[in-house]
Amino acid sequence: MKKLLMACFAFTVLTGIELMGQQALGGGQAIVSPEIHENHTVSFHLDAPHAQEVKLTGDWMPVEGWVPGSVDMTKNEKGIWTYTSEALEPDLYGYAFLVDGLRINDPNNAFVSRDIATLTNIFMVDGQQSELYKVNPVPHGTVSRIWYDAPALNKKRRMTVYTPPGYESDRKSYPVLYLLHGAGGDEEAWMELGRASQILDNLIARGKAKPMIVVMPNGNVIQDAAPGEGSEGFYKPAFMIPKTMDGTYEETFMDIVNFVEKSYRVKAKKSHRAIAGLSMGGFHSLHISRYYPNTFDYVGLFSSALVPNQNPGATVYQNIDLSLEQQKQNGYKLYWIGIGKTDFLYRANLEYKKKLEDMGMPFTFRESEGGHIWKNWRIYLSEFVPLLFN
Amino acid sequence: MKKLLMACFAFTVLTGIELMGQQALGGGQAIVSPEIHENHTVSFHLDAPHAQEVKLTGDWMPVEGWVPGSVDMTKNEKGIWTYTSEALEPDLYGYAFLVDGLRINDPNNAFVSRDIATLTNIFMVDGQQSELYKVNPVPHGTVSRIWYDAPALNKKRRMTVYTPPGYESDRKSYPVLYLLHGAGGDEEAWMELGRASQILDNLIARGKAKPMIVVMPNGNVIQDAAPGEGSEGFYKPAFMIPKTMDGTYEETFMDIVNFVEKSYRVKAKKSHRAIAGLSMGGFHSLHISRYYPNTFDYVGLFSSALVPNQNPGATVYQNIDLSLEQQKQNGYKLYWIGIGKTDFLYRANLEYKKKLEDMGMPFTFRESEGGHIWKNWRIYLSEFVPLLFN
Repeated sequence: MKKLLMACFAFTVLTGIELMGQQALGGGQAIVSPEIHENHTVSFHLDAPHAQEVKLTGDWMPVEGWVPGSVDMTKNEKGIWTYTSEALEPDLYGYAFLVDGLRINDPNNAFVSRDIATLTNIFMVDGQQSELYKVNPVPHGTVSRIWYDAPALNKKRRMTVYTPPGYESDRKSYPVLYLLHGAGGDEEAWMELGRASQILDNLIARGKAKPMIVVMPNGNVIQDAAPGEGSEGFYKPAFMIPKTMDGTYEETFMDIVNFVEKSYRVKAKKSHRAIAGLSMGGFHSLHISRYYPNTFDYVGLFSSALVPNQNPGATVYQNIDLSLEQQKQNGYKLYWIGIGKTDFLYRANLEYKKKLEDMGMPFTFRESEGGHIWKNWRIYLSEFVPLLFN
Repeated sequence: MKKLLMACFAFTVLTGIELMGQQALGGGQAIVSPEIHENHTVSFHLDAPHAQEVKLTGDWMPVEGWVPGSVDMTKNEKGIWTYTSEALEPDLYGYAFLVDGLRINDPNNAFVSRDIATLTNIFMVDGQQSELYKVNPVPHGTVSRIWYDAPALNKKRRMTVYTPPGYESDRKSYPVLYLLHGAGGDEEAWMELGRASQILDNLIARGKAKPMIVVMPNGNVIQDAAPGEGSEGFYKPAFMIPKTMDGTYEETFMDIVNFVEKSYRVKAKKSHRAIAGLSMGGFHSLHISRYYPNTFDYVGLFSSALVPNQNPGATVYQNIDLSLEQQKQNGYKLYWIGIGKTDFLYRANLEYKKKLEDMGMPFTFRESEGGHIWKNWRIYLSEFVPLLFN
């Protein structure tokens, strides 16, 4: 055997590209980018000697119009473009390069998040808030992609489920948070952009949150799963998807609750159910919680898309005031609203706040800096979760 | 409520970029790429008016040196570069653009696979073989990322586990396939590049494979999880990782088996355990199966990296012939070897075949076209799985 093995060839001369062999497609450059320095400044590099102009755009930059601005990068004599940021506060960030106007990902950074049809490179600056977003040496929950039967929609659909550390080995029952995505999102969004499993792991380990199951369903009822993960195969994802805000999701949501309560060890009562969502998911959470006014004791509306009913004929949006009144009379433990001061939905959320005050519906109002951004939704989640199931 | 909602603004004027708001980073182009035509030719497009030269590289192109070749794309008057391939046989493919020498992903294709430090766009051409790789309207298994205790390595580690359709609702026990990745891979590789869950779903639905659990552990013992998913955070993944082929994985593998047999409903006996892997994972499967010669009745070596022992002092590689002899005497049901005729490991696998013949160890030898590529490993998996647990 030794002879055989030694006979093949000297393994020591094998380099990465050789053993990877025919499968390698091009391959990365020898550059490290981004470089996160100890003082929290960040350097970005791109080897593009033939480019005339390279810019960097990042989600920490001031917004110009609807998108973050960009800054010029500088080319050195070897054709490598560089930019070093100011010190960034601890958080998860996204960025891209603009090479002669063409938006590209950083070929030296293998980590991206998909938001609708766009991939954006990500990196993390360590510190107090982002400590919650890291994989720390604490017990970790399990994250499952599971398909469930949705008879009201006549299809099998996929959801992402976080079960807390210990779920596999203990025999306890757990409370459930239903956590909903925004327009253009899907059952992957809270995991990929929201760091939901890391936030839960870390809060539970610190004793700041009760161990709970987090169910992240897909709110686009015409999809069976996230783009690329379902029966439609690979296609270009769209932002606006039919039937997302016409009541269909609200009307059929109990298929999800029923599946979860049948398949997992849960405490199946109002005091142990929460529902929260961002943007369109805030809209869904508002309506689902009043449509089933005896189901959820905890409601979270994050930058909620308080927009007019898109389908005036849909029965689900009839009698809104009456059902909110019913929700109030039935009682609940928490109705939490988070909104950024520069969010384009800020005024709509202030108006909803006034409406709740006029109705005498108790709520918690959390006003933050910033706009309609994942940075805020991660913060809202990390503030909301510790308030649940106490 | 209606008044409030209508007062905010007219939702109908909201376009994607507006509701997405400040979070949008640039955004995609209005192009669809790739376009897969009915005759199985594929068109690729890139809007890059300032580029001097744009090439396309794809893993269906003839290999030049160690990497696939490339072809020139043609620019039209609007600055959009296009290339249309010949008809491609049904499969999953990877590609990238080379813009003035800079390798970039297709900004109009949100789907990529990570292989070591490189992201590669993917697409699928439909047909008989790739039908196994699609999400079809069949019952789907659950895919979980779960952390386990590895006392022999003194850390918590992450694995990917496929449980077959029905696992959550029935009370049956299942056989287990341990499926190992290659060098530079991790517990995500068989899911992301190997389409393992789709292959299992489809074979089980067709009655071609027994329902089984598939455990995909991480064979890089110094990692706790795939790059970006573990305690090391985001960093540039390397191809060569210390301690991958020095016996440590083989010596500590029973931590994985023990965890699986404690945590899942499995048939915990030799006749219901299989182990298989690609490249370095084939090397691991060879050694693990002989190191525990009474544990696995099914062994699969896919393009196995039959390379010399990297750590001559390691006890795990002592007495190889003796332990193979023991494995033979104990008996097993299947010893399956797959290798491509142009694989750089072809000769080494032929020599191993001869060694087994000389020893009188029964085996199945599957020689295929092609080299050291995922296309072959998906085919080998889809041929190997139907042979298990019969």
